[in-house]
Amino acid sequence: MELDDLLRTPVEPTTKGWPVLAGALPLGAVGRQGWNLLRQDLPLPAAVLKGSALAHNSRWMRGFLERFDVRLCPHGKTTMAPQLFARQLADGAFGITVATVQQLMVCRRFGVPRVLLANQLIGRQAIRTVIAELEADPTFEFLGVVDSLAGVRALEQELKERPLGRPVEVLLEGGVAGGRTGCRSLEEALAVARAVAAAPELALVGVEGFEDVMGVGLRDAEPRVEAFLDFLVEIARACTQENLFAPGPVILSAGGSKYFDQVSRTFGAADLGRPALVVLRSGCYFSLDAKGYAEAMARLAERTPEVRELGAGLRSALELFALVQSTPEPGLAVVTMGKRDVSHDVGLPLAHQWCRPGLHQRLQDLGPGFEVTGLYDQHACLRTPADSPLQVGDLVSFGIAHPCTTFDKWRLLYVVDDDYTVTEAIRTFF
Amino acid sequence: MELDDLLRTPVEPTTKGWPVLAGALPLGAVGRQGWNLLRQDLPLPAAVLKGSALAHNSRWMRGFLERFDVRLCPHGKTTMAPQLFARQLADGAFGITVATVQQLMVCRRFGVPRVLLANQLIGRQAIRTVIAELEADPTFEFLGVVDSLAGVRALEQELKERPLGRPVEVLLEGGVAGGRTGCRSLEEALAVARAVAAAPELALVGVEGFEDVMGVGLRDAEPRVEAFLDFLVEIARACTQENLFAPGPVILSAGGSKYFDQVSRTFGAADLGRPALVVLRSGCYFSLDAKGYAEAMARLAERTPEVRELGAGLRSALELFALVQSTPEPGLAVVTMGKRDVSHDVGLPLAHQWCRPGLHQRLQDLGPGFEVTGLYDQHACLRTPADSPLQVGDLVSFGIAHPCTTFDKWRLLYVVDDDYTVTEAIRTFF
Repeated sequence: MELDDLLRTPVEPTTKGWPVLAGALPLGAVGRQGWNLLRQDLPLPAAVLKGSALAHNSRWMRGFLERFDVRLCPHGKTTMAPQLFARQLADGAFGITVATVQQLMVCRRFGVPRVLLANQLIGRQAIRTVIAELEADPTFEFLGVVDSLAGVRALEQELKERPLGRPVEVLLEGGVAGGRTGCRSLEEALAVARAVAAAPELALVGVEGFEDVMGVGLRDAEPRVEAFLDFLVEIARACTQENLFAPGPVILSAGGSKYFDQVSRTFGAADLGRPALVVLRSGCYFSLDAKGYAEAMARLAERTPEVRELGAGLRSALELFALVQSTPEPGLAVVTMGKRDVSHDVGLPLAHQWCRPGLHQRLQDLGPGFEVTGLYDQHACLRTPADSPLQVGDLVSFGIAHPCTTFDKWRLLYVVDDDYTVTEAIRTFF
Repeated sequence: MELDDLLRTPVEPTTKGWPVLAGALPLGAVGRQGWNLLRQDLPLPAAVLKGSALAHNSRWMRGFLERFDVRLCPHGKTTMAPQLFARQLADGAFGITVATVQQLMVCRRFGVPRVLLANQLIGRQAIRTVIAELEADPTFEFLGVVDSLAGVRALEQELKERPLGRPVEVLLEGGVAGGRTGCRSLEEALAVARAVAAAPELALVGVEGFEDVMGVGLRDAEPRVEAFLDFLVEIARACTQENLFAPGPVILSAGGSKYFDQVSRTFGAADLGRPALVVLRSGCYFSLDAKGYAEAMARLAERTPEVRELGAGLRSALELFALVQSTPEPGLAVVTMGKRDVSHDVGLPLAHQWCRPGLHQRLQDLGPGFEVTGLYDQHACLRTPADSPLQVGDLVSFGIAHPCTTFDKWRLLYVVDDDYTVTEAIRTFF
């Protein structure tokens, strides 16, 4: 299925955030309706992406990649939105990174030519699905990951049963003690790399890891991130010395959305004695947020001041809108947005602005003293100051603290211009 | 759309949990494939409902309702699964409760005749959608909620612009100080009730509230729940005395999934001097869980020992299955299930059983020492004891701590028999 087919597909009127009375319009027709959020053309809660911020973030990242001479294979799991993948690919992305085979198949359904599955392929269904996809399309460029002999053997075994005629390309994963997946020592890593090199069904094309597994604050994490990146380079050097890599450039890949400057610098300086390709995988740069990654980006600019040459930093593009449902006691406004609508794993949503339909044409700043104190499944409790203007029926906008766990709560998000007129609707596939 | 149409609709192969290689089968055909979870016929993670536990919980609740002479209008937001709604209606449910107009429209699309929207209707889109639905189907029985004069006026105004020819039925919501929505005092409640009674477009048909807003432990909550229920009865008595209710039985409704015995007892004993109908709204009884509501049910049986006459209590029907992705260091297994697959707001998932495909026909108990210590977006870290048998590729089953925030992470769940053969696939509409 191509993106054009998706755009021609009608949106189900029972989709969350959809104005039921508009009926079932094609996804691609939404941007032509002139719907405006502040004029109550949409039911709330709704999730919106500010088009100007997306465009800015897109430009900023292109500048970063050029400045540091690295590539980006953005993590698709953040948005799971093929329409946004298409923009990222148009921006020159190396491919799309995914966490699961379901996510891989969403990419494939919408024609993504190169997919990096950043987790070891495990389980008969998952392995066979990838093999079938490689069989079905000889131009499909798949990059997998291995971190254990068991993982190598599982893949090898399935490939022996269904020979492909071309090797499956894998990256060797290094990990950090107390962290997530990945080989913890050079010896383990080399044992896995040797097993890959010995298997004609597989080709070792690089080394990768996920550096953000430290569970500590940004500054404390930095030296650990650095040591981990050095470890990945050490693995790559040892693999080069043993000639375990397949021909072609060696891929060095890491880089979630917090430390990709460190990754770019350290991998960029790795001298493997043969061509290398540094591939970042940030997924959150595109929408950012108002807390988790926003703070990480502020710290990135301190750590790597040359990014200031790229102009203003990444902006938060993702906002939630809800209505005041009730103001049942002084100091409390209950709004129509809950755990099922917005991230709450990194921090609670941040109340930013408000307006009263019919009275205001634009959003008004809330000022200090407004704080989300808790979320129910479908409600948020907003603590308000004594002089709060909020009344039942008012609109309130919120910044979010984590894009990945906000996108996944919506099948449909709206791209809006700076006046909150809808210019596009975005479908997600979680 | 009827349920039959849904069952004839093919499942998109990119749906999470779907075996891609099976292609796009109709939803209703899934139960005839003989797929078995332990034989790796499904990709993992997957969410399953044990059919025997669902049937047991269904029987238990019918027994409870009969024993206490109350009705159930189960909260549909928990599962958002029209196939499960149909079972609940077949069990004699009064209707389906929802939290939002989107959820209401899902019910209506699948022919639910009576829907209780347990939140004040707010916002032009939401109000107009409900009015349009009432216009379109004169047999649609809608019950709304009001908790403020502003809410009454917003509804009244829209109804004056689009007269319906029959009054919109609403329940008056009482609330608790420091809680969520609902009038905090008798005076406020009566002011709202009088405004409803004075509006020919509206009919006051009862009083309701949500008693689980205390933020305290189960035992400490009980006297507060009791006081709150007494307050709701007090409101209903005062409305009766002022003759503010429309003709017919007065509905007294409350009852999430923790204290519905207290609700049944207190409302059952309310002497309003006119016929009353007690309507519970528990949504979690059907699937239960392995922690949050499981503990609440254990306490309910202590508090109300006569429920033991109904036989064994409610059982946890909802389980998650994932694969061991990596065992990168002693004491740690990383499994393929994360924040996007399982609830993490009330507690982390509980590792229960495991099996090795090809070796075991049945699940094996894990024994002590296994604990989920954290979730990433797509991974769980499982702490394992020194003698853990878990290897890469093994299956692990998990109990969940909160059904509402687990169901909403799946578009497709499987009903399985006790051997984990799939007997049915369930679509959700979040």
